[in-house]
Amino acid sequence: MAKKQPAGKGEGAGKGPARREPSLSDLLRLAPGEAVDLSAYDARATPGGPKGKAAGKKDMAALAEPLGGLQERLYAASTAGDTRRLLLVLQGMDTSGKDGTIKHVIGLFNPAGCRIRAFKEPTHEELSHPFLWRVKRALPQSGEIGIFNRSHYEDVVVARVRGLVPHRDIRRRYGQINRFERSLADRGVSVVKVFLHISYEEQRERLLARLDNPDKHWKFSEGDLADRALWPDFHRAYETALTRCGTEASPWYLVPADRKWYRNWAISTILREHLEAMDPHYPPADFDVARAREKLRSMG
Amino acid sequence: MAKKQPAGKGEGAGKGPARREPSLSDLLRLAPGEAVDLSAYDARATPGGPKGKAAGKKDMAALAEPLGGLQERLYAASTAGDTRRLLLVLQGMDTSGKDGTIKHVIGLFNPAGCRIRAFKEPTHEELSHPFLWRVKRALPQSGEIGIFNRSHYEDVVVARVRGLVPHRDIRRRYGQINRFERSLADRGVSVVKVFLHISYEEQRERLLARLDNPDKHWKFSEGDLADRALWPDFHRAYETALTRCGTEASPWYLVPADRKWYRNWAISTILREHLEAMDPHYPPADFDVARAREKLRSMG
Repeated sequence: MAKKQPAGKGEGAGKGPARREPSLSDLLRLAPGEAVDLSAYDARATPGGPKGKAAGKKDMAALAEPLGGLQERLYAASTAGDTRRLLLVLQGMDTSGKDGTIKHVIGLFNPAGCRIRAFKEPTHEELSHPFLWRVKRALPQSGEIGIFNRSHYEDVVVARVRGLVPHRDIRRRYGQINRFERSLADRGVSVVKVFLHISYEEQRERLLARLDNPDKHWKFSEGDLADRALWPDFHRAYETALTRCGTEASPWYLVPADRKWYRNWAISTILREHLEAMDPHYPPADFDVARAREKLRSMG
Repeated sequence: MAKKQPAGKGEGAGKGPARREPSLSDLLRLAPGEAVDLSAYDARATPGGPKGKAAGKKDMAALAEPLGGLQERLYAASTAGDTRRLLLVLQGMDTSGKDGTIKHVIGLFNPAGCRIRAFKEPTHEELSHPFLWRVKRALPQSGEIGIFNRSHYEDVVVARVRGLVPHRDIRRRYGQINRFERSLADRGVSVVKVFLHISYEEQRERLLARLDNPDKHWKFSEGDLADRALWPDFHRAYETALTRCGTEASPWYLVPADRKWYRNWAISTILREHLEAMDPHYPPADFDVARAREKLRSMG
C-alpha cells in the first residue's frame, strides 16, 4: 500500500519495460508480518485510482456488469458442488463508510446471492458463547458473497479500547482469529478484509453533516463522540490487529476512505480481482440437452 | 385486476370528472372473496403500465430514488421503536420471473435492509416441523424489507399437485395461512403477495432459451418438464390458493409477467405504493443537537 513517504511502489508501476502491472489488491494489501503505522497512510490518497470523482463514478458503474457476471458464475458453480464463496469483512472507525460501501458496492450485486450481517454490541446470548460463535453462524454459504459490517475484529479493538476483556485474553484472540481465518481459507472461503482508513478531520466533517441534517440524526449517537475522544486508542488497537492478523492466508487491505468515490471504486475493484482469481465456471448440463429440447417441443 | 373480457376497470380510469385515479395496487389486486380464474387474465397485458419497453425501463430506473428513500425511512424509524416492516411474497410457475424480480426490483434497494429467503424443497428438519415453522423463522425484522422467493404457498400448491399431503390437511392449511397472515398484519408486517402470471407459450420460450444457452443449463432441471406437464393441475391449485387466501388483511396481486419490463415496473410500483401508505418517518434526535455540535467542534 502506497504510504505518504516515500512515494508508494504503485506510483511508478507499469513504467518498467516487462514488469507485470500490479493489481489494485497488490497495491492496497498490507504486507503480512510488517508492523502497521496508520499515520503513514494518507486517507485522501487515491492509489491506483481513476483521475477524479467523475472518472471514478464512471469506472465504478462499468464494474456492475463484470461483478454481476462473476457472482452468477460463483453461484451457478455452487449448484454443481463447488463450495467456494467470498467473505468481505469491513472494519473502520465510525463514519468511515461501512454502510455506504454496502449500499453502493454490494448494491452492484444480485441481492439474492449476498448474505449481509451487521455485528452490533454482543447480545446477552452472544456473550455467553466464545467470541467467534456469532461470527461462525453468519458465514456465507457455498456460492454466496458474505458481507460483515464489523466483525470479530470488534472483539480485539473495541474490547481492548474499552477494557471489556483482560489483556491476556485479547492477546490470545489474535491467534484464535488467525487459526479461524486459516480454516476459512482451507474450506474455500476467500476472505477479503478491508480497513476503511479515514482521517480525524474527515470524521469531524461527517459527524457535523449528520448533526446538520435532521434526516440523519438517527445515525448519530453520543457514543460517537466518546469513541472519537478515544481516537488514538482505537488507532493503536487497529494497528495491532492489522499487524497481528494480517497473514498470507488472510491479508488486510487498507483502503483510503476520505473520498467516497475512491473507496467505492477501490473495494469494487478488489472484489473483482478476487472473484477473477477464483475463476468460477458455469457447470455443464447434468441432463441430455437435445432430448430435453425435443421433449419440450413435443409438449406444445 | 383487468381481465381479458370485458375491458378492465383500469382502462377508463381517470376519465370521470372527480374520480380518484386508482393506484396500480388497486388495479392488480385480486378482489378478496371472488373466485379466481387464471384463464381470464392475459399474461402479456400491461395494465396501468408505461407505453412500452423503453418507457418502462425509464420509469423503472426513476423508481430507484423514491424506493431507496422510503426504505431508509422505514429502517430509520425502526431504530426508534417502529416495528413495521414489509414482506414481499413471490409465487409463480417455473420461469415466471421470481429470480429476475429479486435481481432487478430488489436490486434497487439498499441490500443492507433486505432479508431474502428462497424456499426450496423442505429439508428433513423442516419436514419434522409444522409447515409454517420455516417461514416464521425467515420473517423480516423491524425496518427491513423481507423477500420470500416461494413461500408457504408451496405447501398448498406443490403439496397438492404432487399429492404430498392428504387433501384434508391441504384444506386445513388455507385457514392456517389466513390466520398466520392476519397475525402478521396485526404485528405491523405489511405482506405483499404477488402471483407472477405467465402463459404456457412464454414458459416454453424461456425454457428453450435456457436449453439453447450453455451458461443457463444450470438453471434447468428435468423436473421443470415434469411440472410443465402438470400445468393445468398447478393452475387449479393456484386458483384455489389465490381464492381461499386472498383476504382483506392480505390480498393477492396478480402481475402479468410475460413482459419482463412490465413485471419489474409493476412490482416496483406496488412496493412503492405500499411503502408510501406506511409513510415511515425519520425519528427525531434523542440527544441535544446543539450541545453535540459544540462538543464536536471543541474536539478539534
